Amino acid sequence: MALVVQKYGGSSLENADRIKRVAERIVETRKAGNDVVVVCSAMGDTTDNLLDLAQQVSPIPPAREMDMLLTAGERISNALVAMAIHNLGAEARSFTGSQAGVITDAAHGKAKIIDVTPGRIRQALDDGAIALVMGFQGVSQDTKEITTLGRGGSDTTAVALAAGLRADVCEIYTDVDGIYTADPRIVPNASALKTISYEEMLEMAASGAKVLHLRSVEYARANNIPLRVRSSYTTDPGTLVTGFMEDIPMEEAILTGVAHDRGEAKITVAGVDDTPGISGQIFRVVADAEINIDMVVQNVSHIGTGKTDITFTLPKSDGQTAMEALNRAQPQIGFEKLLYDDHIGKVSLVGAGMRSHPGVTATFCESIAGAGVNIELISTSEIRISALVRDVDLDKAVAALHDAFELGSDKVAEVHAGTGR
Amino acid sequence: MALVVQKYGGSSLENADRIKRVAERIVETRKAGNDVVVVCSAMGDTTDNLLDLAQQVSPIPPAREMDMLLTAGERISNALVAMAIHNLGAEARSFTGSQAGVITDAAHGKAKIIDVTPGRIRQALDDGAIALVMGFQGVSQDTKEITTLGRGGSDTTAVALAAGLRADVCEIYTDVDGIYTADPRIVPNASALKTISYEEMLEMAASGAKVLHLRSVEYARANNIPLRVRSSYTTDPGTLVTGFMEDIPMEEAILTGVAHDRGEAKITVAGVDDTPGISGQIFRVVADAEINIDMVVQNVSHIGTGKTDITFTLPKSDGQTAMEALNRAQPQIGFEKLLYDDHIGKVSLVGAGMRSHPGVTATFCESIAGAGVNIELISTSEIRISALVRDVDLDKAVAALHDAFELGSDKVAEVHAGTGR
Repeated sequence: MALVVQKYGGSSLENADRIKRVAERIVETRKAGNDVVVVCSAMGDTTDNLLDLAQQVSPIPPAREMDMLLTAGERISNALVAMAIHNLGAEARSFTGSQAGVITDAAHGKAKIIDVTPGRIRQALDDGAIALVMGFQGVSQDTKEITTLGRGGSDTTAVALAAGLRADVCEIYTDVDGIYTADPRIVPNASALKTISYEEMLEMAASGAKVLHLRSVEYARANNIPLRVRSSYTTDPGTLVTGFMEDIPMEEAILTGVAHDRGEAKITVAGVDDTPGISGQIFRVVADAEINIDMVVQNVSHIGTGKTDITFTLPKSDGQTAMEALNRAQPQIGFEKLLYDDHIGKVSLVGAGMRSHPGVTATFCESIAGAGVNIELISTSEIRISALVRDVDLDKAVAALHDAFELGSDKVAEVHAGTGR
Repeated sequence: MALVVQKYGGSSLENADRIKRVAERIVETRKAGNDVVVVCSAMGDTTDNLLDLAQQVSPIPPAREMDMLLTAGERISNALVAMAIHNLGAEARSFTGSQAGVITDAAHGKAKIIDVTPGRIRQALDDGAIALVMGFQGVSQDTKEITTLGRGGSDTTAVALAAGLRADVCEIYTDVDGIYTADPRIVPNASALKTISYEEMLEMAASGAKVLHLRSVEYARANNIPLRVRSSYTTDPGTLVTGFMEDIPMEEAILTGVAHDRGEAKITVAGVDDTPGISGQIFRVVADAEINIDMVVQNVSHIGTGKTDITFTLPKSDGQTAMEALNRAQPQIGFEKLLYDDHIGKVSLVGAGMRSHPGVTATFCESIAGAGVNIELISTSEIRISALVRDVDLDKAVAALHDAFELGSDKVAEVHAGTGR
């Protein structure tokens, strides 16, 4: 008998009929002899509707009350799923994050889980019941206030509970049937991966793959919880996220997939003195505005002027804030111009096989060039290469890479020999 | 500085605009120098929508999950009102029933408040904030489960908090501007009462006046909390419910108003043996089905047969259950026929003045007869007379009584002298 944590996203719960189908799947899992803990997100567009109501009463709603408001969404969905399970003859009890022992810090709207004390969940399982836990929410340790976990919160709730309960697997149900080698809307012969290591999944998520949120994968890796990403519409086993990169034998390491991201913008701070500490000054200004930056390039000095340009990317949604902060800091930094460009796209190739196969970078660049696409910026990690291109060229670049590294078939992608990477 | 508890019903909160107007009223009360605790019901038709969703997933939803589901409604409305208050520059914090210390028994869907420990509310007030409490909900004492209080629950939450906090007044905001001498839709010259005693209000509520629920008035009387019923659409002071009947000087006691009720049905158990204990048998069957009966009449024995009929009224919604229960008990009770009639209406005259003015009953019967309406059944209490009439005659009877006792003007109703009551 295994202990299975299942998480269902909002698209799997968009109406009463979908809720009944989800209940059937949960009861099947229970009948197969497993202990089952379920985490449900809010139904379909409930959260958007609540956000809209909040906007109507207050342009800048206080974060504490926003958390109180938004947690109503998961309350509704989890209670309804519990009812649907009862209707199938199984016992189910829904619990708030607080009741389930999801203890967080006090940062409303973006709380971090600091402990999980799932005594009532364990009791429900011992009583033979299916336990449902409202995702995305917790209670602050000292102030006992209701908190929400921010983006990817329900996945994080599921993984944290799986860790706290020492579950055998955490299944993330969504509207796609796994992690793909590329977005099938762009690359029709993209294929679903059977397994992927935590590190590769992290790189894919950080590079724009939307299926799993970075945070829940980090939590799963830290606690070694196998994650299974699968569809609530099919019985397909989906993709298993498990295992550490260092445990993958070199000869089995492959290239995993191509991810893309349309959510970034590029800022260039042009004509700054090419002196030590100048980039530190710039990034401190951005960091103080609580903005995460992604790719960074510092150009070589313009000959004879002693001036240089610094370019970085950041989420589009933070673009205005960053530009304003940098503009205010102009007197200290002393740049000549500030340029903003949000017509960019990022394409990334991810895979542990990159470590063992020379020439990946060369093939990466050649295949993008072969598609007639210009690379504006490149950055790499141990198992990822990312390039910035024009947004209108992004799909071409994704398809070209997917094709060049032969990710579309079941075959392991062959990497062309080259002059190292 | 007074401590004011305000309760806003769903119709006062049906959209963002109404929520903002309610917030303005709350902030005005705070700015006038009062400590303010607010209890909000769910917005407009939220509860109906949630009930509808529950029906879609399960025909008989478990009561525990129903409570979890329905409490989402008050969570949404209270958080939104708190946001709207913030937007006006005042501080507000919303609390769940559990956080506010509303401790109940474990009867899901119809829990009773057994204690109020409003430590967090007191703290919020001490911090200068307006405290909002989600009405209609609590937490069970031993099992720590979320409960709901059933019908009239939000009013009861408000009164219980007022008692627990020793508030100076509990204001119940609704869509009418007080307690009327009769339903103004039936009697155009009905007038709003300035004050009414707890007992008179209880009789009015029990007789069909919908503005206040019986339960909250009982709670207010037991704790001597003045209740003010007023409209959230006007600045009219409304009606103050306060004072005990025994404290009203005889010569000031008046007739309060005419209430009516279209929600009852009449069952006649015909042809039962006129022996001791027979009515006890019948009402035990009804009580075992958890149905409250209202008026009761046992006819005199049919001459020569030793048989009699027993007639009683009960809520229409319980009619089918009662008929089935009695039908099953036919072998023991041995009645000849079971008759069911839901085309009835009940009209009641209420007022402490009834005690001191003889002839009220005579005028009551005369005025109904004068309107050409037949009385089918009469029952009385110390300060109330009720009559059952045909449903189509109900409005005529209400208007005739209101007119006969001159309740429409500001004058104290003059009671015609007669032969005692």
